[in-house]
Amino acid sequence: MASVLVPLAEGFEEVEAVSLIDVMRRGGIEVRTVYLEDEFSNALVTGANGITIQADMSIKNVICDDFDMIVLPGGWDGTYALAENKRVLELLKECKANKMVGAICAAPYALKKAGVLGDDYTCYPGAKDEINQAGYRNDKKVVIDGNIMTSQGPGTALCFGLAIVEKLVGVETMLSIKEGMLLDFC
Amino acid sequence: MASVLVPLAEGFEEVEAVSLIDVMRRGGIEVRTVYLEDEFSNALVTGANGITIQADMSIKNVICDDFDMIVLPGGWDGTYALAENKRVLELLKECKANKMVGAICAAPYALKKAGVLGDDYTCYPGAKDEINQAGYRNDKKVVIDGNIMTSQGPGTALCFGLAIVEKLVGVETMLSIKEGMLLDFC
Repeated sequence: MASVLVPLAEGFEEVEAVSLIDVMRRGGIEVRTVYLEDEFSNALVTGANGITIQADMSIKNVICDDFDMIVLPGGWDGTYALAENKRVLELLKECKANKMVGAICAAPYALKKAGVLGDDYTCYPGAKDEINQAGYRNDKKVVIDGNIMTSQGPGTALCFGLAIVEKLVGVETMLSIKEGMLLDFC
Repeated sequence: MASVLVPLAEGFEEVEAVSLIDVMRRGGIEVRTVYLEDEFSNALVTGANGITIQADMSIKNVICDDFDMIVLPGGWDGTYALAENKRVLELLKECKANKMVGAICAAPYALKKAGVLGDDYTCYPGAKDEINQAGYRNDKKVVIDGNIMTSQGPGTALCFGLAIVEKLVGVETMLSIKEGMLLDFC
């Protein structure tokens, strides 16, 4: 069974995080959400729009070897928190070496901070200048460059989830979820 | 400021609930999520795909007069729980009288149970037979019939959120969110 790590920092974009987790779990992927603190009351993390989600465990207990991929949801506050977290940056580098790395919306900024953003990538159009790296393209909802996958924002998060399922599980499973969730626009 | 009540029952569909809450809050709507029990440890409710969200308060403390609309997310387990809850059915009838009522995916089933489903409605295609009422249509992502709004499923939830913002706040706010969230498919 494929497994994916999703770090949740305060201020994460809720539609992006939940769309990715939901689609990946429907695809049979074991998704583990982690909060960034060592200890945290009830593991509750609040997103950019006031929606509070309970994470599965602390980031201190995970290593990239246990996962096939790490995926970062966006939201500016959440993205800055990820980009300033030493352990997140280490995990991104570890995963880049021989696993998959993904980020959506503003979160490719954290990939750039870790030095793992690909030559071809996409992101939230409004985050392009802050990321400030050649290779940005806005012609695709999901850009795959080697083992780095990026996507644009809330409206492309479900499609990004499908692309991850296709990569880690297979095209038939992806197509079945696409039909079941009414994602004809992906 | 417009306000909307979103009941969360165990087994709710997470993409639907979070998409609706996120879009409505971006539109300036005060969204209150409620759990169905009187007392509940930390107000945590777990959805159909294992995502746990913290609700704002108990349903016992709300009346329809305090809101402009009640909206039900789907997911079969969540829908059955809503449809079997006496207080939810009462609230649906109260809101039908002089507020707005909404439901997505399987949740129009709960509207039918409460006797408030309109003559024109949509729902998840696979829920049509269980709902078993004339007036089902599959040609629109969102169907508005008087003060009853219905939508199809996870892939239409963001568009449903936009339609609610347009109705309760206005078309300019809706268009601004549509652009900001990259929802050109709505």
